[in-house]
Amino acid sequence: MAPKRIAFLVFPRLTFLDFVGAYDALRRIATMSIDPAVTHRIIGTERRIVDETGLVLTPDAVYEDLGSFDLLYVPGGLGTRTLMNDGQLLDYLGTWGSQRPLASVCTGALLLGRAGFLRDKRATTHHSAWELLRPLCREVVTDRRIVDEGQVVTAGGVASALDLGLYLVERFWGVAARQTIAAQMEYRAYSEVCERRAP
Amino acid sequence: MAPKRIAFLVFPRLTFLDFVGAYDALRRIATMSIDPAVTHRIIGTERRIVDETGLVLTPDAVYEDLGSFDLLYVPGGLGTRTLMNDGQLLDYLGTWGSQRPLASVCTGALLLGRAGFLRDKRATTHHSAWELLRPLCREVVTDRRIVDEGQVVTAGGVASALDLGLYLVERFWGVAARQTIAAQMEYRAYSEVCERRAP
Repeated sequence: MAPKRIAFLVFPRLTFLDFVGAYDALRRIATMSIDPAVTHRIIGTERRIVDETGLVLTPDAVYEDLGSFDLLYVPGGLGTRTLMNDGQLLDYLGTWGSQRPLASVCTGALLLGRAGFLRDKRATTHHSAWELLRPLCREVVTDRRIVDEGQVVTAGGVASALDLGLYLVERFWGVAARQTIAAQMEYRAYSEVCERRAP
Repeated sequence: MAPKRIAFLVFPRLTFLDFVGAYDALRRIATMSIDPAVTHRIIGTERRIVDETGLVLTPDAVYEDLGSFDLLYVPGGLGTRTLMNDGQLLDYLGTWGSQRPLASVCTGALLLGRAGFLRDKRATTHHSAWELLRPLCREVVTDRRIVDEGQVVTAGGVASALDLGLYLVERFWGVAARQTIAAQMEYRAYSEVCERRAP
């Protein structure tokens, strides 16, 4: 089932491109009328989100109940090192449960790992964080940008967000949608960088 | 001379990835200590900037005097169609003068063109806006992602912002800086997509 309601998590000291790289692809599902009924919300851990370098973003909501969403997207950034030990955030992620798909880019995987989503799964993250991720998953994949384990899709660092966004577009809305959106984005790099889960 | 003070322009209905794609590379000049003295400011045309799809950004300043900056970056987005006829913005861009370098991605080129910066120059923009750009420059380049005409560097659509950011890093801080930053960003696409100006 293709998602209808997408939640993007943002938090202090995130890496903005981790978020926007995939956001740009996914928001086009609606704006390019592939499915105009798809909506999204930017959900913050605070009312005013300041990224690693001072960009100030106002999210749509703070810790909004995730019950009505069917895809959750978690970026990375230096702020993950604090949030890895933030009980409120980990409990919040835990409410997502074991059925609905969720995705991380870069060190967002550390948050998914700490929340228990990667316990029996392979995963990836920014190359600087492979060792931090190792105890939180079954196996750290170091030679792929995208690791799809079914419920959980993790991607590598920063610019991998563009690949992840397009990968999710293809997974849920098909190859033609991914091609249309990549062309509109003028993104030419998406290619054989993705790994699908074993059948 | 490598820039020390970078101004990023943001405006209503910009395309966020147009901005963040290059921002991520350029802000790393300071954060990765290639030149810790480099600073930047996010300058808005309004105090509260809402992008094409509802993202809300608070800029550092509104119509801040450009006198102290030495690189100006202009993203694109649907908002450019209105701003192309906005006297205040065009006058503001005009204060940049004919000496200091400036760069646009996507339909940001329409703003540079309307402000007169492309009159005798080749330029590029998002493929959907080639016809709009044609009367504003000497020649629209349709087969390159980046067109460097010396003072003015223009780039293609959306995801071209990542290439442009890395291109500017290389132009001003050297190949090694570009390679270091691209590796940290895990961006693997930057390659032969750039065109340098004729010697």
